[in-house]
Amino acid sequence: MRLSLSGTKMAGLSGLRSIMEDVAESAAGASADEWLNLSVGNPAPIPAVRDMWRAALRESIAEDFDEAGCRYGPSRGSHALVEAVADYFHRTYGWQLGPENIAVGPGSQMVCFAAASLFAGPGVHGERRIVLPVVPDYTGYQGLCMHDDGIAGVAPLIYREEGHRFRYALDIEALQRRADIGMLLISSPGNPTGRALSRADLDALTALAAEREVPLFVDHAYGAPFPRIAEVHTEPVLNDNIVNCFSASKAGLPGERIGFAIGHPKYVAPLTAFMSNSVLHAPQLAQHAFARVLADGRLDDTTREAITPYYREKKRFVEELLNELLPTDIDWRMHSGDGGMFCWLWVDHPWFDDTTLYSRLKERNVFVVPGRHFFVEPQFTPGLADHATRCFRLSLSANKKVIAEGVHRLARSSAHDRFG
Amino acid sequence: MRLSLSGTKMAGLSGLRSIMEDVAESAAGASADEWLNLSVGNPAPIPAVRDMWRAALRESIAEDFDEAGCRYGPSRGSHALVEAVADYFHRTYGWQLGPENIAVGPGSQMVCFAAASLFAGPGVHGERRIVLPVVPDYTGYQGLCMHDDGIAGVAPLIYREEGHRFRYALDIEALQRRADIGMLLISSPGNPTGRALSRADLDALTALAAEREVPLFVDHAYGAPFPRIAEVHTEPVLNDNIVNCFSASKAGLPGERIGFAIGHPKYVAPLTAFMSNSVLHAPQLAQHAFARVLADGRLDDTTREAITPYYREKKRFVEELLNELLPTDIDWRMHSGDGGMFCWLWVDHPWFDDTTLYSRLKERNVFVVPGRHFFVEPQFTPGLADHATRCFRLSLSANKKVIAEGVHRLARSSAHDRFG
Repeated sequence: MRLSLSGTKMAGLSGLRSIMEDVAESAAGASADEWLNLSVGNPAPIPAVRDMWRAALRESIAEDFDEAGCRYGPSRGSHALVEAVADYFHRTYGWQLGPENIAVGPGSQMVCFAAASLFAGPGVHGERRIVLPVVPDYTGYQGLCMHDDGIAGVAPLIYREEGHRFRYALDIEALQRRADIGMLLISSPGNPTGRALSRADLDALTALAAEREVPLFVDHAYGAPFPRIAEVHTEPVLNDNIVNCFSASKAGLPGERIGFAIGHPKYVAPLTAFMSNSVLHAPQLAQHAFARVLADGRLDDTTREAITPYYREKKRFVEELLNELLPTDIDWRMHSGDGGMFCWLWVDHPWFDDTTLYSRLKERNVFVVPGRHFFVEPQFTPGLADHATRCFRLSLSANKKVIAEGVHRLARSSAHDRFG
Repeated sequence: MRLSLSGTKMAGLSGLRSIMEDVAESAAGASADEWLNLSVGNPAPIPAVRDMWRAALRESIAEDFDEAGCRYGPSRGSHALVEAVADYFHRTYGWQLGPENIAVGPGSQMVCFAAASLFAGPGVHGERRIVLPVVPDYTGYQGLCMHDDGIAGVAPLIYREEGHRFRYALDIEALQRRADIGMLLISSPGNPTGRALSRADLDALTALAAEREVPLFVDHAYGAPFPRIAEVHTEPVLNDNIVNCFSASKAGLPGERIGFAIGHPKYVAPLTAFMSNSVLHAPQLAQHAFARVLADGRLDDTTREAITPYYREKKRFVEELLNELLPTDIDWRMHSGDGGMFCWLWVDHPWFDDTTLYSRLKERNVFVVPGRHFFVEPQFTPGLADHATRCFRLSLSANKKVIAEGVHRLARSSAHDRFG
């Protein structure tokens, strides 16, 4: 059996996916209590959120089924959702959008996958890459590219802050030195860190995208206008060089795969054609449900009343626990920012290794995610490998009891054997 | 704005999609009665089928929502569906399947898209193509390939039969002469013709796949074990060299995008990894609904009692109409076979042109689909272009009144001006 070149690439699993398979296999058949899983990327099961989506899906099946489920839909997205998106962003930000500015896909990961194929890879003027303006960022981006060496990440500037905090910042000059940009892709607020673009950051990235005539994809999965899981420093901006991506996943509906992109038709039209040639279109009933909660304000209400407060409180809870429990002689730091689905932790000691921590905590039936996978090949960037292997991610989606016990075991592990 | 090489390919729309956009634009805003649309690829709205899916989706929302909608699912497919598929095929054909033999995707088009990227295209030993063993076949296959000239179709053998009938057959010797096969892909029963593989055909294709060490993808969207829209000449066969693809779409749920592949792990594992890197997974509630109707026999019952008889009757109805209404001095022929979602018609006269027919019927507010788009670049195969442009497709999904009036207008057009 012979795979094509891109087949060889796409048949592989990124480092993180191997970890997630290990988690799934280890936990298979075990009771939910047996493992403390702080590795999950699922949004937290917030009752008000679940109730909202379940009600909307029920309405959709009752009222939209003949139009939606029983028929193929438009590759751009169902009329109901495209119209609801245009209205919603007009109401929220005053944007003037027509259908030509909107492309719905089965999840924003698929939208980004299409973009990677369209805007990066071998072209008539040579090879161009997906460039992540600052790593760490969402590991799923590394699987998007169908070519070896098709994605690159720019190392962050690292600032230590008061207490046990630190933050990453964009190294815009390092980014500008790259001549191989096919598209820019960044999550803001970011997975795993909660790092959020300021308006000045966004303007600098937009100017670079304009100068290079490439799209800047900004993935708002955790941000504004919904679900505002993590702190937002600037609201989304409509610009000819930006493609803004939004998703229902972190707003509570990951299983149904709905995301959409908003941008200039020069970028949106190829995305729509790609959908038409590959996946045809996103599932229709979930699109109709999404349209309903956008249109009648339920999603905004739920964001404000249930989602944002939930994660803000959860983050404070974990930060307090860490401050209370981790040994005082360890230089551990958490990435700054209110809320977020994760704590991103940095233990700045030469003896710390993220994969060793993973194994040791696994022995204690706790799962966390090693930090190195959120960087793109950190071993090739001087100085970055040391940082990357001294980070790890804790998820805030589990309930407080699980998180508290997980952090206790983490603290005991750190006290006994320096996390070893 | 610069697209990559594969971006340029994927941003384009195949000839048929341009036609479908023309249909959508022409009919937009018009009342349903105004246009007689015999071009549609949607399955017919059969009440028993709609009721079955709606009930299954309701049950899924009521009972599976916490597990399904609110969480990311496995890229292989939800446990419920993978298990239901294994059980169903064991019960139906005695197949012994484990999860490693099954890959669910958001529609079998996406499964085939992944396969095209994995098994065709540039490789270490040069360029290999998706080869369609016999054209005409489903036009969507032509959009799967991310490379120029990445797909090829083998011209059919054409047999005239009694009355106004004809049939295509596999030219296995012509197929064997191709040295560039990366994967074989065929629908059986086929869109648009209803052509169905015999066991001997299937064995010959399987032997070729084994010899070349490439997968043979057999797309059963219209066939066995469900929805049996068109006549099946051989039931699906489990073999290390065959990847069998099945879909909920023609069984009545096209809007929700669920398909799956069954085959040897050497082919299924890369498909699952591809899903994981691109679309993550298929929508979960629809997967659970699909699992329900497979497991409790509803899909088999509906296939037998509602779907198969519906299309068989529809096909007879149209064939009678055509026999009654088309001028007797025209050599028109319909592809043989009971049932099917379409009539595939061949008018073997030099004055006949499929796109001229399309335009003339459009002037009479009737839509049909020109035949040429179902062939892959027929202009490059001696003799095939003449045949390809003398064919067209009529859909059986519209109601009888619409079909009858459409066929009347077709007949009037043919009588007045030789279809011109």
